[in-house]
Amino acid sequence: MSQKIAVVGAGFIGRSWAMVFSKAGHHVSLYDIDPVALSEAMNLLEINIADLESNGLISSKDDLLGRIQPYKTLEGAVEDAEWVQENALENVQIKRKLFSQMDELLPETTILASSTSAIPCSDISNGMKGAGRIIVAHPANPPYLLPIVELSGAPETKDETIFRAKELLEAADMEVITINKEIKGFVLNRLQVALLNEAFKLVEDGIVSGADLDKTIKHGLGLRWSIMGPMETIDLNAPGGIRDYLERFGPAFEAIAKEQSSIRPWDTSRFIKMEEERRKVMPINDLRERARWRDRRLMALTRHKEESDKHYGK
Amino acid sequence: MSQKIAVVGAGFIGRSWAMVFSKAGHHVSLYDIDPVALSEAMNLLEINIADLESNGLISSKDDLLGRIQPYKTLEGAVEDAEWVQENALENVQIKRKLFSQMDELLPETTILASSTSAIPCSDISNGMKGAGRIIVAHPANPPYLLPIVELSGAPETKDETIFRAKELLEAADMEVITINKEIKGFVLNRLQVALLNEAFKLVEDGIVSGADLDKTIKHGLGLRWSIMGPMETIDLNAPGGIRDYLERFGPAFEAIAKEQSSIRPWDTSRFIKMEEERRKVMPINDLRERARWRDRRLMALTRHKEESDKHYGK
Repeated sequence: MSQKIAVVGAGFIGRSWAMVFSKAGHHVSLYDIDPVALSEAMNLLEINIADLESNGLISSKDDLLGRIQPYKTLEGAVEDAEWVQENALENVQIKRKLFSQMDELLPETTILASSTSAIPCSDISNGMKGAGRIIVAHPANPPYLLPIVELSGAPETKDETIFRAKELLEAADMEVITINKEIKGFVLNRLQVALLNEAFKLVEDGIVSGADLDKTIKHGLGLRWSIMGPMETIDLNAPGGIRDYLERFGPAFEAIAKEQSSIRPWDTSRFIKMEEERRKVMPINDLRERARWRDRRLMALTRHKEESDKHYGK
Repeated sequence: MSQKIAVVGAGFIGRSWAMVFSKAGHHVSLYDIDPVALSEAMNLLEINIADLESNGLISSKDDLLGRIQPYKTLEGAVEDAEWVQENALENVQIKRKLFSQMDELLPETTILASSTSAIPCSDISNGMKGAGRIIVAHPANPPYLLPIVELSGAPETKDETIFRAKELLEAADMEVITINKEIKGFVLNRLQVALLNEAFKLVEDGIVSGADLDKTIKHGLGLRWSIMGPMETIDLNAPGGIRDYLERFGPAFEAIAKEQSSIRPWDTSRFIKMEEERRKVMPINDLRERARWRDRRLMALTRHKEESDKHYGK
């Protein structure tokens, strides 16, 4: 089952993928166009992997690290790879150049996947000989702690590519969803945007403070949504299931949806107050430490979910 | 600190409040207009409280149960109460009748709170002598497992009422947010509606299956949101905080928000396919057992959060 996986781009997302694939037993070749970034990445990986070990999420740090090899050339990194995961800058020209180079270098059996969060697959693969094996595999942040991956192909992407991508990623303990038509922002960010769009208005209009809005999710909706998605949530919130729920709440919720439909510009000047409020709660210099706290909490939550899945079922 | 709290209406929400207040050490008088429902409620409470005990969330079942007394008259239940939590049907006439009756019965020092999820406080309290001590305290479902409470007063509600409500509920381990202006659906349901409105479109348009959409939240956004709210989430997702995040993603997210602004009717006929898909995943007869599973998972998650709060900080 162990294969060679190439990770192209050794920034935070690339490093996360390297951990995911190495944890699954694959041999990972890590490439970055910048040799300094590459050697720094190896140091950072050591820290992250030690963290995973001390938090009980992996059994051997050395095994994981031992399977990740840095490569100074793209050619060396991708040679004989079963899968390439690309994590370059979010720039369509850069990505097209990279994919067309890899498309030339690699046999059609190698899947070429992009981590892009914003560029449609066809903008990357359009017109390439091997467009059928090119796909977007968009992870969440941070990918080594949040298992979700969104697969989104271009119209040219072969069904077999999607099938094999799902298989390989699921075998690496990722939770994979398939997006059937190309759409801006895929699914995760569209859902996030829908919620944020309303959240910003509520805070801007003085209905609720940003801190209180955060509490509403953290101690309310977010707890349920960490166990089950929004569809299952409402399916369980009325005795007759989702239809019963929508019959009860549909009219009231439609009236709310209508109020929410206006769009205000997502201009940063609009968000100055929110920024000020956040900085009072958390000075800019504390963000790094708080992100570490988040990651430790996510690791503990991952352990908890694994135990609960075993004990109570999924 | 132990006070007398009256819970009016012994359905699921009323019973949950009875547990919350009893757990906090208060003496709870439980009233229902229907004596059969009242005695049934006492039996159900015994089952729920045993569940809390066996899941390690309370130390003594008998203590909790011993502090909850059923009352067959409203007058008896509310007499000498510090706080009344109302959980009658979601009908403004019924609620107005009840509140006006209680407003006559009780001194101005008693806070009268409604659990309504949809009726603005002023529609209930408008014109009443004691409108200043009437407030909405809207919990999430199920209230004894999700700590969030939304406080929403009418313009007549006194600041002191809001202050005392927050104090009493926080002392009962609830997480309290204050809504500064009356608004349809308060905050929790407005955020849920915003997300559902987009979720339904994505499923209806065949972009993603309902099951995959659920995975996106359960294994992605929901994990983060169970640890921190959406504002803190984006504040940590760019090195320079929320402003930096919005500078990076604002334009792309605004384009998505524009696409999302159209409203389709929340007519149940629109949701037949979603209902069919859910029923394939989970037959209607399995919903009850699944809701029990959800509650056990929420209890385990609550224990996990308590431990993690201690270990890593909040």
